[in-house]
Amino acid sequence: MYIILVYDMGEKRVGKMLKLCRKYLNWIQNSVFEGELSDVKLLELKSKATKLMDKEVDSLIIFVSRQERWLEKEILGKERASTDIFL
Amino acid sequence: MYIILVYDMGEKRVGKMLKLCRKYLNWIQNSVFEGELSDVKLLELKSKATKLMDKEVDSLIIFVSRQERWLEKEILGKERASTDIFL
Repeated sequence: MYIILVYDMGEKRVGKMLKLCRKYLNWIQNSVFEGELSDVKLLELKSKATKLMDKEVDSLIIFVSRQERWLEKEILGKERASTDIFL
Repeated sequence: MYIILVYDMGEKRVGKMLKLCRKYLNWIQNSVFEGELSDVKLLELKSKATKLMDKEVDSLIIFVSRQERWLEKEILGKERASTDIFL
C-alpha cells in the first residue's frame, strides 16, 4: 500500500514523531512523509505514533492508496531533499 | 480527481497560499488541503500558486488520485476542524 502521512504535533513531541516516521517512510516535506508499507508495518507505525501523541492536541492523518500507480505526484518549487530536516 | 496538497512556504508568503488554496480545497491540517477538483480547476490553482511562490525556497506537493474511493483516509489524534486556521 502506498502511504502519505502528515502530522501537526506539539513542539515537545515533533522531534520524536519525525524520528519514528523516518523509520517507516520517506520524508518529503516539513511534517509530510510518503512510501510503501505493508498492512503489518502500517499497524506498527500507527500504534507507536499513537503512544507518542497527545490526542487532545496533536493530529496525524494517513492517506492509503492500495496501489502507488493510482496516485500521481507533482512537485512545484523546491524539492525538499530527504536529507533536509525541518522540524 | 481527488487532490491532496501540502505546502512548505516562506513566512511572508504562507498567508497568501492559505487564502488561495482555501478557494479550491478543504483545509485539513497545518499546510495540508484535500478535495475534489476538475482538471481545469487544478491547472488554475497550480498556475496561481506558482505565481505566489519563491521557487528557490517554497515547496508545494500535489497528489492526485483519479478516484476518491482509491484513497482511504484515517485521522489519529485531534481532527483539525476546518474553521481552525494555523498558518
